Amino acid sequence: MKPLIGIASNLTVESSFHLEQNVVGCHYIESIKKSGGLPILIPFTLNHADICTYVTLCQGFLFCGGGDINPLLFGENPHALNGSGHVELDQFHLFLMEKILSANKPVLGICRGIQILNVACGGSIYQDLSLTGNSTIKHMQSEAKRHFVTHKVTFIEGTILQELFGHEVYTNSYHHQAVNKLGDNLIASGFTDDGIIEALEMLSHPFQVGVQWHPENFIQVGNAMLPLFERLVDTAMQRVVFEGA
Amino acid sequence: MKPLIGIASNLTVESSFHLEQNVVGCHYIESIKKSGGLPILIPFTLNHADICTYVTLCQGFLFCGGGDINPLLFGENPHALNGSGHVELDQFHLFLMEKILSANKPVLGICRGIQILNVACGGSIYQDLSLTGNSTIKHMQSEAKRHFVTHKVTFIEGTILQELFGHEVYTNSYHHQAVNKLGDNLIASGFTDDGIIEALEMLSHPFQVGVQWHPENFIQVGNAMLPLFERLVDTAMQRVVFEGA
Amino acid sequence: MKPLIGIASNLTVESSFHLEQNVVGCHYIESIKKSGGLPILIPFTLNHADICTYVTLCQGFLFCGGGDINPLLFGENPHALNGSGHVELDQFHLFLMEKILSANKPVLGICRGIQILNVACGGSIYQDLSLTGNSTIKHMQSEAKRHFVTHKVTFIEGTILQELFGHEVYTNSYHHQAVNKLGDNLIASGFTDDGIIEALEMLSHPFQVGVQWHPENFIQVGNAMLPLFERLVDTAMQRVVFEGA
Amino acid sequence: MKPLIGIASNLTVESSFHLEQNVVGCHYIESIKKSGGLPILIPFTLNHADICTYVTLCQGFLFCGGGDINPLLFGENPHALNGSGHVELDQFHLFLMEKILSANKPVLGICRGIQILNVACGGSIYQDLSLTGNSTIKHMQSEAKRHFVTHKVTFIEGTILQELFGHEVYTNSYHHQAVNKLGDNLIASGFTDDGIIEALEMLSHPFQVGVQWHPENFIQVGNAMLPLFERLVDTAMQRVVFEGA
Amino acid sequence: MKPLIGIASNLTVESSFHLEQNVVGCHYIESIKKSGGLPILIPFTLNHADICTYVTLCQGFLFCGGGDINPLLFGENPHALNGSGHVELDQFHLFLMEKILSANKPVLGICRGIQILNVACGGSIYQDLSLTGNSTIKHMQSEAKRHFVTHKVTFIEGTILQELFGHEVYTNSYHHQAVNKLGDNLIASGFTDDGIIEALEMLSHPFQVGVQWHPENFIQVGNAMLPLFERLVDTAMQRVVFEGA
Amino acid sequence: MKPLIGIASNLTVESSFHLEQNVVGCHYIESIKKSGGLPILIPFTLNHADICTYVTLCQGFLFCGGGDINPLLFGENPHALNGSGHVELDQFHLFLMEKILSANKPVLGICRGIQILNVACGGSIYQDLSLTGNSTIKHMQSEAKRHFVTHKVTFIEGTILQELFGHEVYTNSYHHQAVNKLGDNLIASGFTDDGIIEALEMLSHPFQVGVQWHPENFIQVGNAMLPLFERLVDTAMQRVVFEGA
Amino acid sequence: MKPLIGIASNLTVESSFHLEQNVVGCHYIESIKKSGGLPILIPFTLNHADICTYVTLCQGFLFCGGGDINPLLFGENPHALNGSGHVELDQFHLFLMEKILSANKPVLGICRGIQILNVACGGSIYQDLSLTGNSTIKHMQSEAKRHFVTHKVTFIEGTILQELFGHEVYTNSYHHQAVNKLGDNLIASGFTDDGIIEALEMLSHPFQVGVQWHPENFIQVGNAMLPLFERLVDTAMQRVVFEGA
Amino acid sequence: MKPLIGIASNLTVESSFHLEQNVVGCHYIESIKKSGGLPILIPFTLNHADICTYVTLCQGFLFCGGGDINPLLFGENPHALNGSGHVELDQFHLFLMEKILSANKPVLGICRGIQILNVACGGSIYQDLSLTGNSTIKHMQSEAKRHFVTHKVTFIEGTILQELFGHEVYTNSYHHQAVNKLGDNLIASGFTDDGIIEALEMLSHPFQVGVQWHPENFIQVGNAMLPLFERLVDTAMQRVVFEGA
Repeated sequence: MKPLIGIASNLTVESSFHLEQNVVGCHYIESIKKSGGLPILIPFTLNHADICTYVTLCQGFLFCGGGDINPLLFGENPHALNGSGHVELDQFHLFLMEKILSANKPVLGICRGIQILNVACGGSIYQDLSLTGNSTIKHMQSEAKRHFVTHKVTFIEGTILQELFGHEVYTNSYHHQAVNKLGDNLIASGFTDDGIIEALEMLSHPFQVGVQWHPENFIQVGNAMLPLFERLVDTAMQRVVFEGA
Repeated sequence: MKPLIGIASNLTVESSFHLEQNVVGCHYIESIKKSGGLPILIPFTLNHADICTYVTLCQGFLFCGGGDINPLLFGENPHALNGSGHVELDQFHLFLMEKILSANKPVLGICRGIQILNVACGGSIYQDLSLTGNSTIKHMQSEAKRHFVTHKVTFIEGTILQELFGHEVYTNSYHHQAVNKLGDNLIASGFTDDGIIEALEMLSHPFQVGVQWHPENFIQVGNAMLPLFERLVDTAMQRVVFEGA
Repeated sequence: MKPLIGIASNLTVESSFHLEQNVVGCHYIESIKKSGGLPILIPFTLNHADICTYVTLCQGFLFCGGGDINPLLFGENPHALNGSGHVELDQFHLFLMEKILSANKPVLGICRGIQILNVACGGSIYQDLSLTGNSTIKHMQSEAKRHFVTHKVTFIEGTILQELFGHEVYTNSYHHQAVNKLGDNLIASGFTDDGIIEALEMLSHPFQVGVQWHPENFIQVGNAMLPLFERLVDTAMQRVVFEGA
Repeated sequence: MKPLIGIASNLTVESSFHLEQNVVGCHYIESIKKSGGLPILIPFTLNHADICTYVTLCQGFLFCGGGDINPLLFGENPHALNGSGHVELDQFHLFLMEKILSANKPVLGICRGIQILNVACGGSIYQDLSLTGNSTIKHMQSEAKRHFVTHKVTFIEGTILQELFGHEVYTNSYHHQAVNKLGDNLIASGFTDDGIIEALEMLSHPFQVGVQWHPENFIQVGNAMLPLFERLVDTAMQRVVFEGA
Repeated sequence: MKPLIGIASNLTVESSFHLEQNVVGCHYIESIKKSGGLPILIPFTLNHADICTYVTLCQGFLFCGGGDINPLLFGENPHALNGSGHVELDQFHLFLMEKILSANKPVLGICRGIQILNVACGGSIYQDLSLTGNSTIKHMQSEAKRHFVTHKVTFIEGTILQELFGHEVYTNSYHHQAVNKLGDNLIASGFTDDGIIEALEMLSHPFQVGVQWHPENFIQVGNAMLPLFERLVDTAMQRVVFEGA
Repeated sequence: MKPLIGIASNLTVESSFHLEQNVVGCHYIESIKKSGGLPILIPFTLNHADICTYVTLCQGFLFCGGGDINPLLFGENPHALNGSGHVELDQFHLFLMEKILSANKPVLGICRGIQILNVACGGSIYQDLSLTGNSTIKHMQSEAKRHFVTHKVTFIEGTILQELFGHEVYTNSYHHQAVNKLGDNLIASGFTDDGIIEALEMLSHPFQVGVQWHPENFIQVGNAMLPLFERLVDTAMQRVVFEGA
Repeated sequence: MKPLIGIASNLTVESSFHLEQNVVGCHYIESIKKSGGLPILIPFTLNHADICTYVTLCQGFLFCGGGDINPLLFGENPHALNGSGHVELDQFHLFLMEKILSANKPVLGICRGIQILNVACGGSIYQDLSLTGNSTIKHMQSEAKRHFVTHKVTFIEGTILQELFGHEVYTNSYHHQAVNKLGDNLIASGFTDDGIIEALEMLSHPFQVGVQWHPENFIQVGNAMLPLFERLVDTAMQRVVFEGA
Repeated sequence: MKPLIGIASNLTVESSFHLEQNVVGCHYIESIKKSGGLPILIPFTLNHADICTYVTLCQGFLFCGGGDINPLLFGENPHALNGSGHVELDQFHLFLMEKILSANKPVLGICRGIQILNVACGGSIYQDLSLTGNSTIKHMQSEAKRHFVTHKVTFIEGTILQELFGHEVYTNSYHHQAVNKLGDNLIASGFTDDGIIEALEMLSHPFQVGVQWHPENFIQVGNAMLPLFERLVDTAMQRVVFEGA
C-alpha cells in the first residue's frame, strides 16, 4: 500500500473571471508518484480542526514554491523589495507545517517551502538577496528550460542531503529571498559559493527537509533529483507500516 | 467526524513558464466546507489503481466546470465548433466517474461535470448549442458578476432537484455544450425554456446528480444554492456513519 | 439659484486592482453646467429609502449611456446577442426612474437612458438590432471622433424634439439595441430611415424625454445639441421657482 | 434624517474612446452608507460659486485616493520621481477643501486626501518617499488583496485616532508620497516605525482628519476601520441636528 | 526644374499621447521622387482659400490610401460594414480634388484616392465588397510583403492604363470597398475577373487617373509600376513648361 | 554512413527587429534523427542552380507545415478565405520539389508539404475546407497538446501508408486547406470520414509521399508515427548504398 | 498673401505593415495657421538639391519634437542613455537647417528642433539630463494633459523671448536631453531653475529661435504661447513683402 | 563549384504552440550567397558523430548572434546581469567550433559567434559590460534601422581586419557582453574607444575570425561589410580547390 502524501495547495487568480483557485504544479505531483507515493492536494483553509485532520490523514507532506511570506509573520516590517504575497495563505501553510512538525511526520519543503519550514520553526527570511550584502550569484535564472542548471550547491558532511547527493550538485535556481536566521533545531546543510543557504534539515529527524531550488523540474528529463522525493516517500512508508502494525 | 469529499482537479498551464498545473476553484471548495464536508483535491492521473484508491478513500465526490470532452470518447467525429480540450484529462475524469458510480457513492457534477456524468453512463453531448437546432436562449452569459442570474430552470416533479429547489430557480449560465442523448439510467430533471437539459439524476440513487449551471458561484452572496452541496455532504455522511458502524 | 440635476452613476471596474467604481462621463456633466444646472452624481444603491431622498433632493435628472439591461427585467429570456450588463445597476436605475416619473420631475435619458425610461414604463427592448428584421443602417459608428455624425433622425410633428430641432437632425450613433414595445404613455418622436426609434417622450409632460444618440459628445464643438439639455434645466428651474414660492 | 456626505470625484480616462470621466470607488461609498450617511458625488468643476454651493449643500465630506498633486501648488519644482497628475483636479480639490475648512465642516481625507488637506493648510509633500532619506518600510504593498495589512501605525496620546483605534493599528499601504512640512493648525497623530506621518488632525476641531492608508478597503471584510467613517458621519449628523434646530 | 507634386496628407492618432498627426507613407513620396517630381505634403485643412492656394502652388497631385469615406457624402446611409473614417478629412480631400479638377491639373488617386476622385465627380462607393453581390476574389490580401501580387487587372483598349501597362497586369490589393456608380465624365479602364472596377480615368484629360491597388509599394523592388507615377510627373512638367513660357 | 536528408526551410519574421528568418521546427529534425538520417536545412533561395546543387547533395527530402500557397500558382484567383502566404517561398518550395521529383529521390511532405507535392505535380488546393461543400469534421484542432489526436484516417488497400499503418490511424489535424484536384501520377491513399484527402503517394515510386496531418509532433511521446520517417530514411539509404556502389 | 511656412517632417513606422511614414503633429500645423501662415510639410529626403529648392520655396520654417540626434553627428560616442534615433533623418534635418541659416530665413525649433539648431551651428547635446550633474527638476512630465505646465522658464533681459513673454513663463516639458555646448553665434535666452537651457536665439537675427518645451500643445486651450508662432510668421511675412517688392 | 558554408542554427520557441525551432536570420544567408558561397544550415544536435560529419561536409562555417553562454562553461558562477540562454545550444556550438578549429577550417563568428570562438579556445566573457568597469559607450543601440552605425572600431596593424577595412570602421552594435580573457592563440584585432574587444583572430590561420558587431545587417544597403564574408568564402574555396586537386 502506498503512503498518502499531502501536498499543500497554493492560491492563484485565473485571468478570465478573476476567480481564486487552488493550484499545484504537475511536476510536484509526478515526482511523488514516480517515487511511489499517492498524492492528494490539501486545499487552502484557515480552519484549524480541518488542518489537524489533514495532518492525521497523510503519512508525508510536500510544500511547493510560491510567493513571499508576509514579514510581519517573522517579526519584521516589510522592505520595499519584498514581493507580492497572500497573508492568509501564509497562515494556512505555517499552521499546517507546525502541526506536521508536532506530529513528527516527514515533510519536504521546496523553494517557498524551505522558507515556510524555517519561519514555522521561528527563523527569519532575507526579504531580498540584495539585503544579504554578499550574494554575488544569479539566483533567479532565465535559462530556456526549467531543468537547466545555473549554480552548484555544496553539502555539509553527515547531513541527509550529503548522503543523498554526495559533496555537491548542480541545480536550477528561481528565488529572490533566502533563509536568514535559522529556526529552532534546524541546521543548514547546503550552500552556494556566495554563502546562501540552499538546504535545511531538522536535527535528529529522519526527513524534515527544505531545499531552495526546484528538484521537481527535473522529473521528466532524468532521475538526478529523484532521491529527494524517494526519501520522503520511504520515510512516510515506514510510518504506514508502523501504523498498520 | 466530517465526510471526506474528493474534488477532481482540472489541468491548466500557467503563463510564465508554461508549466502544467492541477487546479480547483475556491468557490467549489468553499461550498463543500460551508456544507460540512472536508474537501481534498484528487490530482490528475491515468493510474487506474490509484484512482480506485481515491474512490475508496472518499465518501463523496465533486466534478467541476472545465473544457470540452473529446468527442471520440462518445463516438463522434469532432465538429468545428467543439472547443479546446485535454483528452487525457477526459480519460481521468471518465474513469474516476465510472468507479464512483460502480461504488455507488454520491457525486455532484457541475457544468463539465454533468457532461462527464452523462458520457460515463454512455450518453452523448451536443458539441455546440447551435447544433441543437432550437436553442434560443443565451447560455454563455456576460454579466458583470458570476452570481448574476441569466435564465430560469424548471424542474420535473418528483426529482431530487424539485425537492431541493421547488418548481423553478433562476441560475447563472456559462456553457456552449449540453447533454444530448441521455446516458443509461439517467433522467433529465431540469430544463430551460428552450428545452436544453440543465440537470441529470441517477435513477434510484440518493445523490448522483449533475447540473449545467454554476451553483458554487453563489456561495459568497447567500445560501440559495447551498442545498445542492448540503445534500451531497449529507448523503456522504450517511455513508460514513454506515461505514463506521 | 441653479436647479440641482441628479445624474445617475454607472458602475465600472478599474483595471489595476479590479475595484468597482461609480463613474459618469465629463461630457454629460459639462452639458448640464453649460445649460445652467448644478450637477451632482447619484451613486449606485439598492436602498429604496435613499433613492427616494435623492429624488426629493434634485429638481431634474439625467441618465447616461451604458451596458445592456437584463432582459428578465422586461420579461424576456436573454438572447445570445444580448451584451454584458449588471442586473443590480439595472435595478437601481429602474427604481430611480420610476420614482422620478412618480414625482413628475423632468428627466433626460441618453442611449441606455432611453431604454431605462422605456422599461420603467413597461416597454421592451430589441436585444440586438439584427432582431428587428429590418434595420439596414449602421448604428454603432466607428468614426474617428465621437461628435462626427453618422445618420439622420426625423422627428414627428408636434413633439418636443421637433420643437427643439425642427424636422430632422444628423446625429452620432453608438448602440446595438433599441426600443421595441413602447412603454405606457410614451410616444416615439424620432426615427432613423430604417424605422428604428431614436427618441421617446412622455405624453402630457413638459420634459420626460429619451434619445438613442449621444448629444453630450457635441458639447465641446458647438451648441447644436444644447437645446436638449437647456430644456431639461429650464423645466427643472421652473420647479425650483415654484417650490421656492 | 441622514446627513449628506459629499465625496469629491476624481478624473480618469476610459480606454475605448479616451473620454474623461468622473469616478469614485464603491468602497468609499459603501463605507459612508454603512456608517449612516447619505453619499453624493461632487463632480469636477473649477466654478468657485458652484463649489461653494456644494459646501453649503452637504454636512460632511470625503476625499479619496488618487494621483500626485502638482508640486508648483505647494511651492516646489517637480522632482523626477513625482508621479502623474492633473493640475486642474488639484485646483478643484484644494479649493473645495479650503471652503470646507472655512465652513468648519467635518471632513475625512484618505491617501491623496490627507495630502490635499495638508497642502490646503499650507503644508508640503515629499514628492517620493525616497526623498525622506530614512523611509525603510514598504509603503506601496503588493499583497494579493487590498485589505491585507502590511505595517503598523502608532498613534499619539490624546488624538482622535488614538481615541478611535487605541495605541496602534495594522493597516494596508498604497502610497509613494507623504506629508512633509505640516500645514497650519494640523498635528501629526499617527506614524509608521520609520517616522512617516500616517495621520493628520486639525487642532480643536471635532473631525477634520486625514489618513495615509486605505480604510475603505476593509469595508467588506469587517468593521475594524468603520469607526473612522462613523465619526465623520456622526459629526456631520450633529450639524444637521443643529442646523435643523 | 522639377514640377511640384502636392500629396494630400491623411490624419492618424499616435498612441502615446493620442495626438492627431498628418501622415504620408514614404513609398508614395519615393515614387514621386524616383519619377522626377518634387513632393510636398499638403496638411489637413478646411480653409477653402488655403486649399485654393495649394492648388495654385503645385503642378500635380497625389491622393493616397486611407479610411472609408462617410457615405452621407455620396448620399447614402451608412451600412454596418462601412469602416472607420474621418468626415472632416473627407471634406478636405473632396474639396481639394474638386479644385484640382476645376483647375484641370493632373492627379493620381490611389486606393482611397480613386474613391475620392469618384465621389468628387458625383459617383458612389460600394460600402463593402460583399454588397456588390458578385465579388468572388480576395481583395484584402494577407501576403507576407506589400509588393506580392494577388490578382490580375485587365485594361480597356484605348485607355491611358492600357497604354502604360498593356492588356493586363498583376497587382497587390488592399481594399474592402470599390467604385459603384461612376462619377461624371469618368470611365472605368481596369477590372478584376469578378468585375470590380480597379481603375478610373477622366475623359479627354491627359492624366486624371485613379487606381484601386497600391503601385507605390513596388517602388523598392523594381520599376513595374513606375510608369504610372512618371506619367503624372511628365504631365505636370508639361504644365510647368507651359506656365513658365 | 547515414543518408543526408534535406529539410526545406520556411520563412518567418521575428518580432523584435522584424528581421526575416529561415526556420524549421525541432520535431521535424528529431524525427529524421531518430529514424537514422542526418538532417541539414536548405535555406530559402530563388537561385535555380543552387537548388539543383542541394538536390544533388542530399539523398532524401522533407517538407514541413506552413502558410498557404498563392492560388495564382495553381491557376486560381485568390478566395477571401485563403490565408496569408509568401509567394517567393512558394516558388522556392515548388521548384525544389520539382527537381526532387525529376531526380526520382524520396521525399515526405507534411501538411503544407503535401500541398506543395500536389501543386508541383499540377494539382490544385481547396483554398478553404468550407469550399469543399461537405467537410463536417474539425480539421483545425484546439487540443491542449500537439500530439493529442482528433480524427481517424482510413487508408486504401495496397498503398504504402496502408502497409505502414494498417487500415486506419488516429491523427492530429491542423489545416484549413486540402488537396482538391490530384496532380499527375499521384493517388490519394488516405481519407477522413468526410472525404478529405489526408495522404498522397506517387505511383510506382518507393517513397514520394504526402500527409496532411503532423506526424512529427508524436516524436517525443512514442513511436506510433515513426514508420513514416523511417521509410523515408531507409529509401534514401538504399540510394546512398547504390550511389556508393 | 500668407507666407509659406515649411515644416520639416519626422519619420515613424506604422504598426500594421511596418511601413515608414512622414509625420507632423496637427498642433504644430494649427499653430502656424492660427498665426497667419500657410503651412506645407517638407518630406524626408537626402537630396541636397531638392532641399535647397524647399528652402527657396518657403519664407519661414518650423522644426518639431522627435527622437534623439546621433551623437556621432556632434563628435561624441553614444552614451548608454542616449535614446533611439534615425541618423538619416538627422542628416536631413541638419542639412535643411544649415541651408535655412545660410539663407538667413526665419526658423523656429521646438524640442528636438532646438537641438537641431544647436548642432547645425556646431554645438553639442547632453545625451541625457543625468549627465549634466546638476539637473534636479523633472523635465519629462507625466501630467494628464499635454498643456498642463510643469516648471518655470526664466528669460534673459534683451532677448526676443523676454520681449515676447516677459521675465518668466510656466511651460510644459517633455525632454531627456538638452543643449550642452552652445553653437556658433547662438545665445541661451531661457533657463529653468536648475540651469538647463530652455531657449536659444541667433545673435543679430530677427527670428532664428529654439525652445525646449512644446508651445504648440497650448494651441487649443488659449493664446499664451501664440506670440512665438506669430513672430515666426510675421518675420516671414516681411520677407514676402520684401521679395514681392 | 561553390564552397559549402555551414551555418550553425540557433534555437527559438514560436509563440502559438511553444514549439522549439531551429532558426537562422536571412541576412546571414544572403551575405554568404552574395559572397559566392553555398549556405546550408546545421541543425541543433548533441550527437558528436553527427557534428563531426557536418564539419567534414562543409568547407567553411558561420556562427550567428544569439543568447548568452552559460558561465559555468567558462568556469564562472552566473552573475545577476547574465542574460537568458540555452546550455544545450551552447554545448552544440562549442563542440562544433572545437571540431572546426581542430580541422583547421575557416570560420566567422558574429556577436555571440565571437564569444563562442573565445570560449572554445579557453577564454572567458564579461557577463555584462557594466562589469568591465570602464565601458562608457552604448553597445546596445536603439537606432531606427539595423544598419545604422553607432560607434567606431579601430583595428590593429597587421591583422586581417585591418587588411580588409583599413584603420577603422563605423559599425552597428547589439551586445551587452564582450570578450574578457582571451582564448589560446587568439589575438584581439579591433577595439572601440572604451577598450572593448570588437574583433578576434586566430594566430597564423588564414581566416578564423570573430566580430562583435553585425556585418550581415548591411547586406541590403551596400557592400561596406562584404569583404568579411568574401574572405570567409574565398578561404573556403581554396580548400575546395585543394581538396578537389
